[in-house]
Amino acid sequence: MKIAMIGLGKMGGNMSKKLIAKKHDVIVYDMNSELRKEFEGIGARAVESIEDLCKEAEKGNIDIIWSMLPAGEITKNIILDISIRCAESKIIVDGGNSFYKDTVRLEEEVRNNGHTLMDAGTSGGIWGLEKGYCFMVGGDKSSYEFIEPILADLSEPTGGHEYMGRAGSGHFVKMVHNGIEYAMMEAFGEGFEILKEKKEFDLNLEKISKVWQHGSVIDSWLLELCGNLFEKEGNLEGIKGYVEDSGEGRWTVIESIEERVSAPVITLSLLQRFRSRRDETFSDKVIAGLRNQFGGHAVKTKKGG
Amino acid sequence: MKIAMIGLGKMGGNMSKKLIAKKHDVIVYDMNSELRKEFEGIGARAVESIEDLCKEAEKGNIDIIWSMLPAGEITKNIILDISIRCAESKIIVDGGNSFYKDTVRLEEEVRNNGHTLMDAGTSGGIWGLEKGYCFMVGGDKSSYEFIEPILADLSEPTGGHEYMGRAGSGHFVKMVHNGIEYAMMEAFGEGFEILKEKKEFDLNLEKISKVWQHGSVIDSWLLELCGNLFEKEGNLEGIKGYVEDSGEGRWTVIESIEERVSAPVITLSLLQRFRSRRDETFSDKVIAGLRNQFGGHAVKTKKGG
Repeated sequence: MKIAMIGLGKMGGNMSKKLIAKKHDVIVYDMNSELRKEFEGIGARAVESIEDLCKEAEKGNIDIIWSMLPAGEITKNIILDISIRCAESKIIVDGGNSFYKDTVRLEEEVRNNGHTLMDAGTSGGIWGLEKGYCFMVGGDKSSYEFIEPILADLSEPTGGHEYMGRAGSGHFVKMVHNGIEYAMMEAFGEGFEILKEKKEFDLNLEKISKVWQHGSVIDSWLLELCGNLFEKEGNLEGIKGYVEDSGEGRWTVIESIEERVSAPVITLSLLQRFRSRRDETFSDKVIAGLRNQFGGHAVKTKKGG
Repeated sequence: MKIAMIGLGKMGGNMSKKLIAKKHDVIVYDMNSELRKEFEGIGARAVESIEDLCKEAEKGNIDIIWSMLPAGEITKNIILDISIRCAESKIIVDGGNSFYKDTVRLEEEVRNNGHTLMDAGTSGGIWGLEKGYCFMVGGDKSSYEFIEPILADLSEPTGGHEYMGRAGSGHFVKMVHNGIEYAMMEAFGEGFEILKEKKEFDLNLEKISKVWQHGSVIDSWLLELCGNLFEKEGNLEGIKGYVEDSGEGRWTVIESIEERVSAPVITLSLLQRFRSRRDETFSDKVIAGLRNQFGGHAVKTKKGG
């Protein structure tokens, strides 16, 4: 098929490579001209602006416009821009981690501008090139069927692509997927810390994470990554315990509150990430100070006290 | 090899079947005479008491005595009984979910009685027969090597068996494994509840749990079981949300406290199971009552108020 990929970062770049390898006609656009050149060198055609991209679309050189940009204003602005500029009606796919409520609103605007917006929640990270991406797709059903050959090729060999429902549902399901992912990661983190701190057994975390990959109940892709991690990094002396988050976890927690659903473990997994970014908390200073107030318990002071 | 299996429940029974299929000489013992008969019918030799089992051991008909009984007094008493009765020195394997501190004590007693106790934490549940059990084994290293052919056969085809370290370490690692398992299960539980409660998208949980099995970051054996569950049980109308626990989760939480390791998500996963067993809590009655006390907020009364 004729597909335009916008954004040649880790995700969009690998997806473009996979599409080129599958013999699709790939047009690429990225703000970075070096990246554009790189992809021209491997079989894509590059355009230098959204305006040029729309011209190609109007000439019939593009069936699907796929946006693989960071969630937020940049994605919204580019998709709106396309929907206004392109005279020819097109299917635009947002493969990023957009907040589903933004997607619901944007889909309506894009539709009013005469185009179709599909939301394709995408999992698989940098491994998707090799293992296949996993797509959770929302939007118009017949447009899903139209883009399915692309989804099928990108998800090879594992073949993960499925229609979730109306606009926004793809990003919604991907959001909750990431909430679950936060809690699974926290589960492994806590478990391996309990194992590591058991000095009397002097356990080998690499061996443990590997034996668990053979028939245990917690066997999982994240566990495979734990095996790789401990193999490569030993007991992680070289890694700081500082964990970023990128939106989906927060949105999942807010969603659970809006639904009045109790999701304490997903919530705490997010909060643990916040905690990881501070060396000490004001909360702990308050508690230490209060223990001193009521019980005369010693406080450590800043200058070594 | 010549192996005696004590306990023919779901785990010990399936393991015996697998050992018989692998052409080992299997002697079985269970309090239940029906089970003994059943296993005689499929190629095992049954003994009617621990005394008779020890006689077989003394005649050289048993190399390894494997106990697959519920953790606690029953396991401890039978293993101690064997270690006292058997004149011939034997390797005894405790494949159950014994508390590792009990194992450390029991191993010493068994050793003082002239035998060897190995602790084999076992994961895989009822699927182990087909997929292979996953063994985390503690105790004497050369005894591990002696029993390895049995571990290899029982863990086929996935091949999960590994030496963890000194006595107790196998049960310790299995305990933490189960703690992680609790939190992973809670993560999926919460995530699917958030998905199910999103009425506006009317999501299909079976489809979602299946697409996630293809290349997503949360792909896991538990997710496969979710897929089976939603396929068979729809939106779980037939299942009560009442969750038992069986010890290892509690011990993991206690261990984290003893180590002064913060494991909030594993801990909360256990507490959520406790909560699931009560229709209402006294704590919530106190809170409802207090809201009424200070703010005049209405309370619901027991007779419909």
